Amino acid sequence: MKDALTLSEELVKRNEIAEGKVKLVLLVLDGLGDIRHPDNDYKTPLEEADCPNLDELASRSALGRIIPVDYGITPGSGPAHLGLFGYDPREVEIGRGVLEVVGMGMELRPADVAARANFCTVKDGKVVDRRAGRPATEVAAEKARLLQTAIPKIDDVELIIEPGKGHRFGIIFRGPGLAGGVTDTDPHENGEPVHQAEAELPEARKTADIVNRFVKKAGEVLAGGEPINAILTRGVSGPPDIPGLPDRYGLRCAAIATYPMYRGLAQLVGMKLLETGQSVEEEFQTYLDNVDGYDYFFIHYKPTDEAGEDGAHERKVQAIETLDRALGMVLENEPDVLVVTGDHSTPCPMKLHSWHPVPLLLHSPRCGADGRPHFTEQECNCGSLGIFLAKNLLPLMLANGGLLDKLGA
Amino acid sequence: MKDALTLSEELVKRNEIAEGKVKLVLLVLDGLGDIRHPDNDYKTPLEEADCPNLDELASRSALGRIIPVDYGITPGSGPAHLGLFGYDPREVEIGRGVLEVVGMGMELRPADVAARANFCTVKDGKVVDRRAGRPATEVAAEKARLLQTAIPKIDDVELIIEPGKGHRFGIIFRGPGLAGGVTDTDPHENGEPVHQAEAELPEARKTADIVNRFVKKAGEVLAGGEPINAILTRGVSGPPDIPGLPDRYGLRCAAIATYPMYRGLAQLVGMKLLETGQSVEEEFQTYLDNVDGYDYFFIHYKPTDEAGEDGAHERKVQAIETLDRALGMVLENEPDVLVVTGDHSTPCPMKLHSWHPVPLLLHSPRCGADGRPHFTEQECNCGSLGIFLAKNLLPLMLANGGLLDKLGA
Repeated sequence: MKDALTLSEELVKRNEIAEGKVKLVLLVLDGLGDIRHPDNDYKTPLEEADCPNLDELASRSALGRIIPVDYGITPGSGPAHLGLFGYDPREVEIGRGVLEVVGMGMELRPADVAARANFCTVKDGKVVDRRAGRPATEVAAEKARLLQTAIPKIDDVELIIEPGKGHRFGIIFRGPGLAGGVTDTDPHENGEPVHQAEAELPEARKTADIVNRFVKKAGEVLAGGEPINAILTRGVSGPPDIPGLPDRYGLRCAAIATYPMYRGLAQLVGMKLLETGQSVEEEFQTYLDNVDGYDYFFIHYKPTDEAGEDGAHERKVQAIETLDRALGMVLENEPDVLVVTGDHSTPCPMKLHSWHPVPLLLHSPRCGADGRPHFTEQECNCGSLGIFLAKNLLPLMLANGGLLDKLGA
Repeated sequence: MKDALTLSEELVKRNEIAEGKVKLVLLVLDGLGDIRHPDNDYKTPLEEADCPNLDELASRSALGRIIPVDYGITPGSGPAHLGLFGYDPREVEIGRGVLEVVGMGMELRPADVAARANFCTVKDGKVVDRRAGRPATEVAAEKARLLQTAIPKIDDVELIIEPGKGHRFGIIFRGPGLAGGVTDTDPHENGEPVHQAEAELPEARKTADIVNRFVKKAGEVLAGGEPINAILTRGVSGPPDIPGLPDRYGLRCAAIATYPMYRGLAQLVGMKLLETGQSVEEEFQTYLDNVDGYDYFFIHYKPTDEAGEDGAHERKVQAIETLDRALGMVLENEPDVLVVTGDHSTPCPMKLHSWHPVPLLLHSPRCGADGRPHFTEQECNCGSLGIFLAKNLLPLMLANGGLLDKLGA
């Protein structure tokens, strides 16, 4: 059955988008949503924050709440952003290896295959410590560089190795004929031998072979360096096989984000990464500097989520207020469609991502004005957009930009 | 495509459920929802009732409204409860025979086949009265007992016959190789001969044969007893082939209900029936007495629906107030997740089940507090849960109990 995404792909006015006059901005305050709770005296950070810009905007905007994936489902960053970007996160799966390397800021290409990897300790043919005694990051990084130098290539497959935190590192396999769908060499418990990678699909046979040979060679390179004397691989996967936003809608998309994970996710759906600074003012300046070159901007703001994960209510309030003050820069040069929302809720009382619907504000010349005085969870409950799945946001943004034709006559 | 039900089955924390520390309670006020109408001076029973317990709970809970099946669809008790129990009532069909015997309190086992049956009058090979002159219940019951004694078994198939109201009775066929999917012997109009039951599927051939032989034998047993001298069967069906809640989620489920229909429905999804009394206080006491033995409790309260069906507005108000007073027993020993809702609306001005969304209150340490002062239809319209399909309730309850893992990273 056709959903709003399929219909919007059919109805999108590609010619009008090609003129480059309509600007859509998705501003994501990571982990924005929160809950009233005894711990915060029944007041969410959005309710407590002093937000003159957001409040003024709210009164002449359409409000609602978005469900990141589905009822009761708490999303990781991957599924949560896919929904906002106009994909159904219930249909698109991003492999763990892909998320890992993308989160490390490694550049993943369409035919690549990625893996998460651990340094480990092997003795008498068995894994005795899957994390090699949890080495310091710099110690493990040295070993990762050693592997990269010693094993740059296996047959026609190039290896790209990047150190991560502690015992972890990321690998990209780049070459012809590779595919995801290979079992883990990590036995997932100590006392077991390193497993052989096996192809779950015929097209992954070459990948399984390369992975097994890499694991073996790495053991030879690392031999004698206890506790780090072997490696384990997990989550071998290729990038999701999904068409990018430029293909689907003709949108030239740009991502402004400071964290590798969100930059990587944006790249997977065809967004161009813009260089930017660490502050939200710098991110907004990057938007202003590049506004002529793109149709759709994803701007990511991380501090709200970090505060939520730490259970730091006051810090989340401040993070929202900081953003509100900076928002004036965007409002002075108001885009045609401006969405302010989060990818998911990270309630401070929970210190975790959650399933709670995320407050959403959508402003455009066509949005209608709900007249709610504040941008808060409770005001958004009563907005004209209702409570709906995140995957429907992009069609709404396009409609508000005047970029969708009528269905039928 | 995966929906919240499929995803929640994948993400459920079975180990945590197995520890038995998290208690989920679904309290169903049958037919709770109502409508503002000139007949009730535009005040629903929930709005008129004095409910200190529910109001206090509402202010620190999440509110919303549930659509039992789909927009505009009025459900019977079967589909309405299936939705609340975490099934999509648009996908699961409960045969009429099954509903009949379950509603009569007969114990149906997985491989059984059930049928609704009528006593009727046959003359010269044709049905002249499909209801045999609408006999008194006790007269027909006598004939049902006669049949049970005369025909306890056909080949290896045991027959269990239970009298119902007036001309009706229920039959369970129990034995190897039976299946639903058999046409009615009831011609559905007078003046026609009794039809032959035919198998709609190859696996139902034996059932069709047994049904035909039973109808023939019954005619012989009843011969000469006009107006009751034959029988007709309808809705021959087996229990729905659905996995129970214990299989799907590892939940140990208990049902506390006084009416056979709801006890039967609960049993079809794997709930254990607890013995209880007729009053709501006795039902709540049964919950308190058994709280340690189960993870999920379905507590059913019938008087709200009865009042609605009778159009008795004041009686519905009182039924709600009676429940509210007793609710203190549950709140003193607050479960981790408490849901108060209905299976459907039964508006007094309509004297019928209806499609109107049902008010819903969900309380847990993670629910957030919508801060609405009352538990009424109108306040629920502005709650953070929105208006959503009943099938999404169970995933929400599990999430609120901390029993679902995150999707993706």
